[in-house]
Amino acid sequence: MSVETLSTNLAHGGTQGVYRHPSTATGTDMTFSVYVPPHAPGAKLPVVWYLSGLTCSHANVTDKGEFRRACAELGLIFVAPDTSPRGEDVADDEAYDMGQGAGFYVDATLAPWAPHFRMGSYVTEELPALIAAEFPADMTRQGIMGHSMGGHGALTIGLTFPERFRAVSAFAPIVAPSQVPWGGKALGGYLGDDRAAWRKHDAVALIEDGAWVPALLVDQGAADQFLAEQLRPELLERACADAGIPLTLRMQAGYDHSYYFVSTFMADQLAWHAKRLG
Amino acid sequence: MSVETLSTNLAHGGTQGVYRHPSTATGTDMTFSVYVPPHAPGAKLPVVWYLSGLTCSHANVTDKGEFRRACAELGLIFVAPDTSPRGEDVADDEAYDMGQGAGFYVDATLAPWAPHFRMGSYVTEELPALIAAEFPADMTRQGIMGHSMGGHGALTIGLTFPERFRAVSAFAPIVAPSQVPWGGKALGGYLGDDRAAWRKHDAVALIEDGAWVPALLVDQGAADQFLAEQLRPELLERACADAGIPLTLRMQAGYDHSYYFVSTFMADQLAWHAKRLG
Repeated sequence: MSVETLSTNLAHGGTQGVYRHPSTATGTDMTFSVYVPPHAPGAKLPVVWYLSGLTCSHANVTDKGEFRRACAELGLIFVAPDTSPRGEDVADDEAYDMGQGAGFYVDATLAPWAPHFRMGSYVTEELPALIAAEFPADMTRQGIMGHSMGGHGALTIGLTFPERFRAVSAFAPIVAPSQVPWGGKALGGYLGDDRAAWRKHDAVALIEDGAWVPALLVDQGAADQFLAEQLRPELLERACADAGIPLTLRMQAGYDHSYYFVSTFMADQLAWHAKRLG
Repeated sequence: MSVETLSTNLAHGGTQGVYRHPSTATGTDMTFSVYVPPHAPGAKLPVVWYLSGLTCSHANVTDKGEFRRACAELGLIFVAPDTSPRGEDVADDEAYDMGQGAGFYVDATLAPWAPHFRMGSYVTEELPALIAAEFPADMTRQGIMGHSMGGHGALTIGLTFPERFRAVSAFAPIVAPSQVPWGGKALGGYLGDDRAAWRKHDAVALIEDGAWVPALLVDQGAADQFLAEQLRPELLERACADAGIPLTLRMQAGYDHSYYFVSTFMADQLAWHAKRLG
């Protein structure tokens, strides 16, 4: 595979890299970042995937996520993909919540999105194969986390591949996209009107339809401006209770939707992952 | 004083704010950030000043500095001023190392800079008065640190006001601006050809001329691209040795000049400040 290194910097004893590669899934170049903590030569390390939210690229969490110190201490590789294909030849929408920067981690089936917006295949197939090939990653020990739209991605992908991800968590996730404006617009736009297709990309619906994981961790700011309309953690709470999935939902008083919130609880979520990744 | 709050966000249990005020020193609006850690009602907390480097504003360290967790644990207020006046009516230069974003923490005496480029007065007089008035700051317990051009600012201001700053440290500072290209250009441009005036804004010269502090801490990346030509920590090492100033100069193998370097050693430098601030 041809992977171009855009930058590497020593940080907290490990290497923060930013990389670009031509993606067969999206038909575009894709950029992502990987932090590899200090480790013994030849060692293989557990991997935590971080999926970002609307408008973000790999750069937001790489700059503001405050994950490197914890990853260095815990021995975790941290992978941050982009949130969509990008480029002048790629379909887009004027709104921030559709098109470039808003891929929702699905494979679009509708025009104009279908040719490039295949973020589901990208983050679950193509990029994992590249990470396994190019980094000292122990792919038998993977966790997944994300923020907002990326929390949606982490929950749905974690619930879809329970044998792959030993730890699944989220910051302020969209837990039931079928039932909220952001998700209705995106799933309708990318997948069309067939609501049965939406259920495979909706954490609450996946759980209602039988998906099960041994534990979920969610941090949610109680002062989040999107809480009541877009995020609705109570829907996840009810679905988990009905399905017997142990959900730790931590309502964090005073916290909003920003990276100030994410960075505050990042080290704690990473420790939770590290415990489950052995 | 009229201070406008641009944003506040809860982070690591404290408040990260960004503020703007009309500055009498610079004759412009000035933006700065302050992190106030969690604290008991009515408590007054020690203050650490962070001066930023070339091209930066308050935002770079606020986004990438990884200081909040340590400040929350140590009970430190963290103040990050801008690096220059800004605006369409403010003189500028096409180069990144002169004019807006490159104030060098001096009061300029030459045209076209003199009317607005008064960052010396701003960071040593006007902004401290505002911080004392508007935040729960114990101004008897102040430390100062900075990065690159801001390391120059921290060292020179710390050496000039030893009774004010109980702790002085820097990341990859310009230690002898009179002897390196960045400093020669800036001090010449802002202060003119009188090299005697430069000595008050040159850490090595200040020490040679009798300034003394009980301790200095400097972290310097050994792979810093500016090390040999612009930073030259050996000049500070020699001046401190001659003057009997205990300098802890930590050459950090493999680290470059970026915020990946700064953020790696931020918590450790803050702990060093906290110890001295009591």
